[in-house]
Amino acid sequence: MSDKLSKVKEILGEVFDLNRAAAVLGWDQQVNMPPGGAEARGQQLATLGKIAQEKFISDEVGSLLEDLKKEFSDTETDEGAMIRVAARNYDKARRVPPEFIAEQALAATKAIEAWVEAKGKSDFSIFRPHLEKNLELIKKYVSFFPPAAHPYDVLLDDYEPGLPTAEVREIFDNLRPKQVALIKAIGGAKQIKSDFLQKPLNEKKIWDFSERVIAEFGYDFKRGRQDKAPHPFETTFSVNDVRITNRYEKSEPLATLFSAMHECGHALYELGGNPAYERTPLAGGASLAVHESQSRMWENLVGRSLPFWQHFYPDLKKTFPSQLDGVNVKSFYKAINKVKPSFIRVNADEATYNLHIMLRLEIEIGMVEGSIEVKDLPEIWNAKMRDYLGITPPDDAQGVLQDIHWSYGAIGYFSTYALGNIISAQLWEKINREIKNLEEQIRKGQFAELREWLRVNLHQYGHKYDPRDLVRRVTGQDIDPAAYVRYLTKKYTDVYGL
Amino acid sequence: MSDKLSKVKEILGEVFDLNRAAAVLGWDQQVNMPPGGAEARGQQLATLGKIAQEKFISDEVGSLLEDLKKEFSDTETDEGAMIRVAARNYDKARRVPPEFIAEQALAATKAIEAWVEAKGKSDFSIFRPHLEKNLELIKKYVSFFPPAAHPYDVLLDDYEPGLPTAEVREIFDNLRPKQVALIKAIGGAKQIKSDFLQKPLNEKKIWDFSERVIAEFGYDFKRGRQDKAPHPFETTFSVNDVRITNRYEKSEPLATLFSAMHECGHALYELGGNPAYERTPLAGGASLAVHESQSRMWENLVGRSLPFWQHFYPDLKKTFPSQLDGVNVKSFYKAINKVKPSFIRVNADEATYNLHIMLRLEIEIGMVEGSIEVKDLPEIWNAKMRDYLGITPPDDAQGVLQDIHWSYGAIGYFSTYALGNIISAQLWEKINREIKNLEEQIRKGQFAELREWLRVNLHQYGHKYDPRDLVRRVTGQDIDPAAYVRYLTKKYTDVYGL
Repeated sequence: MSDKLSKVKEILGEVFDLNRAAAVLGWDQQVNMPPGGAEARGQQLATLGKIAQEKFISDEVGSLLEDLKKEFSDTETDEGAMIRVAARNYDKARRVPPEFIAEQALAATKAIEAWVEAKGKSDFSIFRPHLEKNLELIKKYVSFFPPAAHPYDVLLDDYEPGLPTAEVREIFDNLRPKQVALIKAIGGAKQIKSDFLQKPLNEKKIWDFSERVIAEFGYDFKRGRQDKAPHPFETTFSVNDVRITNRYEKSEPLATLFSAMHECGHALYELGGNPAYERTPLAGGASLAVHESQSRMWENLVGRSLPFWQHFYPDLKKTFPSQLDGVNVKSFYKAINKVKPSFIRVNADEATYNLHIMLRLEIEIGMVEGSIEVKDLPEIWNAKMRDYLGITPPDDAQGVLQDIHWSYGAIGYFSTYALGNIISAQLWEKINREIKNLEEQIRKGQFAELREWLRVNLHQYGHKYDPRDLVRRVTGQDIDPAAYVRYLTKKYTDVYGL
Repeated sequence: MSDKLSKVKEILGEVFDLNRAAAVLGWDQQVNMPPGGAEARGQQLATLGKIAQEKFISDEVGSLLEDLKKEFSDTETDEGAMIRVAARNYDKARRVPPEFIAEQALAATKAIEAWVEAKGKSDFSIFRPHLEKNLELIKKYVSFFPPAAHPYDVLLDDYEPGLPTAEVREIFDNLRPKQVALIKAIGGAKQIKSDFLQKPLNEKKIWDFSERVIAEFGYDFKRGRQDKAPHPFETTFSVNDVRITNRYEKSEPLATLFSAMHECGHALYELGGNPAYERTPLAGGASLAVHESQSRMWENLVGRSLPFWQHFYPDLKKTFPSQLDGVNVKSFYKAINKVKPSFIRVNADEATYNLHIMLRLEIEIGMVEGSIEVKDLPEIWNAKMRDYLGITPPDDAQGVLQDIHWSYGAIGYFSTYALGNIISAQLWEKINREIKNLEEQIRKGQFAELREWLRVNLHQYGHKYDPRDLVRRVTGQDIDPAAYVRYLTKKYTDVYGL
């Protein structure tokens, strides 16, 4: 191996270790930390972040990468891909001054606090100046980069490398009318009974049930664990230590199960990574959208399918006999797939979810290009909700204030959720062409072939390919909503007898 | 504040954060980590350690400290004390080459593995070459430092700064005959019934009981937590996040309670630190011995005292009515203070414990000065056991192989346990002179005045004073076993009616 390559790998390996250490500290903060630990933890995370950044953006790394780009110009090789990804990250990191990062972090801390208060009181005016500040900083961030076709491209690129705003808009413009039409058709169909889903469940029993399910999916508890936290998330400490969190909410007792499947989907992606990529920039997932395609696949395409419940429903019914008394598997399946336009994105069903995302993308683009002002957000939000979903949020807590993302300055993130749904359906069609009896396997509780297909065709590539490129390699198609529309239409035709 | 002072504090603060981050990773490793995480965790810890070391031993830190030593020469001030401690740590760290540290870490990893196997098979020959290697490295380590009165001084100084071997020997030589005589007297007294202590207890109930007790001691669960781990330990993430671990062993059901009190003693020391010392070398405890004085005080001087049980026994008896049926508080008190020479240090009672330590100290000194060869250890160990405790270990697993310390190269550590016992009794006499009704307070379950006394007189000073100096400041005495002998004599006169 070239001396320069081994030198850069050594430095990047240390940066990697620092980031993984920070992940452990972040996980502990959510899962275990007593309240007293908060102040020092913030300091520890800031120090780890600062040192990782300093190590990464050194002139030494820059000149090593410059030389290595010539030596390893074939990006089909792992070395070439690693240098490509590292050089791109390096270029981005060098453009943003450390003082700016500190300023943004400080503004975010204050804005998160204001957002919590604003949401609690359902008063947008408390959050408004902070969002204006965050937006100003976001515009400044964009200014550090070379002009793009659209300023939003710079932001999106941090989450979906290489995917331009225009393409996402085109995808969404294509999808929107079909999803709106579907929802309208469902609205005219006979409505589904689902009140039994709200009956409280024994917390430990649904938790244990969720662990039985993800263990059958192939989540290996010798290489991970599920802990309680305020919000479900997946976090990676190494390719052999990938953890998930979950919670139980009285108002949504089955969410514990669907969240476990969702986070398990993320975890299987990370666990399926190529061990040779550890401590290099190729470790991890290709992008947020591709990651989300995995979580949504296990949660929805598998976990809300009839074959899945034909396998698991007897166990669920045995676990909760009184709650499910008189409910057969088909009624249960219909209930968990009930469509109802609602205010809150995270609780939205599959038919309406993407519309919540489109609304946010349009507002974000408008804010970044200056066509939408922060002060007008509540009104614009509510108008779009009426337009897409036919409902008006009763207050801003259930409207424009519902998501945390903008408070910590994450603009450019939301569309990845919808793109994940779209990609999951494209992958699903491809998989079903290659695993002919997949439905039958799922009906028998067999997930090994599906999981292995995903590992071999997708997971093992980590960051090697950009998301657009990866989707094309795996499915032979560009990112395209047609498969998702087919999936939704088929499912709801069945569920609602359209 | 001087520019140089703020610069050095900034660097030392980052080193501190890295070490605390490593503590979080180490805790997770013991408490939560799935087996798959082990390899990467070792790498992450190595990276954090390496970066902390690099940052600390830089020429810049050296020249800053050199200048600051002159500017802040009054070590009675916090700044002066901080510079003194930092400069001493710096001098030590600079003397040891990083490659040597790596070599020692590697040897330790192999030796720990060999020790586990050797102990499992009770076969010293498996461990012997590794201990010989560790000893060779320890001698090399000593050679990096200026010649001391005794080579063992260099090792001891890492645990008890400023305390020479000759002084520890003198303390132990003074104590040994008195402890041996006491044990002999006890051996001639009427023996105590304690079989009820071996009855199994409900794990959750004894765990909860232990948490009730330490909460009354003042352990604040908003600034800490108790988790399950293979071995009990205390670890500090910040002055407001100090955690302890514990376990339940069927063979020793009450050990859960005494371990909780022991680790709580360590934790109260850390929680009582001066918040202004955070992120400086003054944070933490003065030394291992002083730390152990706190754990042993809460475990033994408080937790195995009659007044303590006069308060807590009714609750214990209510919690475990069948196990304690027919046992009154005095019988219980006697049983938990039963003296019986035994093979295993960690299970030893207060009367015999220090003899286990003395044996180890003599062997360590002999190994380091070359008067004892590793190959002869089992024989020497057993001879000393007969000499001090009148018993012969049936095998090496219960003899020379019982402790992990030598396998990871920790030579110089053991005496701190006995010194902790000694210091705890000196502090106890002082406290009882100042808090006249302490016994009565304990009998009422009141621990606040004791805890506050310890915080004000001891805990808040952190690393500011060296252990010898600190003991002199707090008690007006040198480290001296007389108080400990008085304590043991009084207790066992009562327990055994000597």
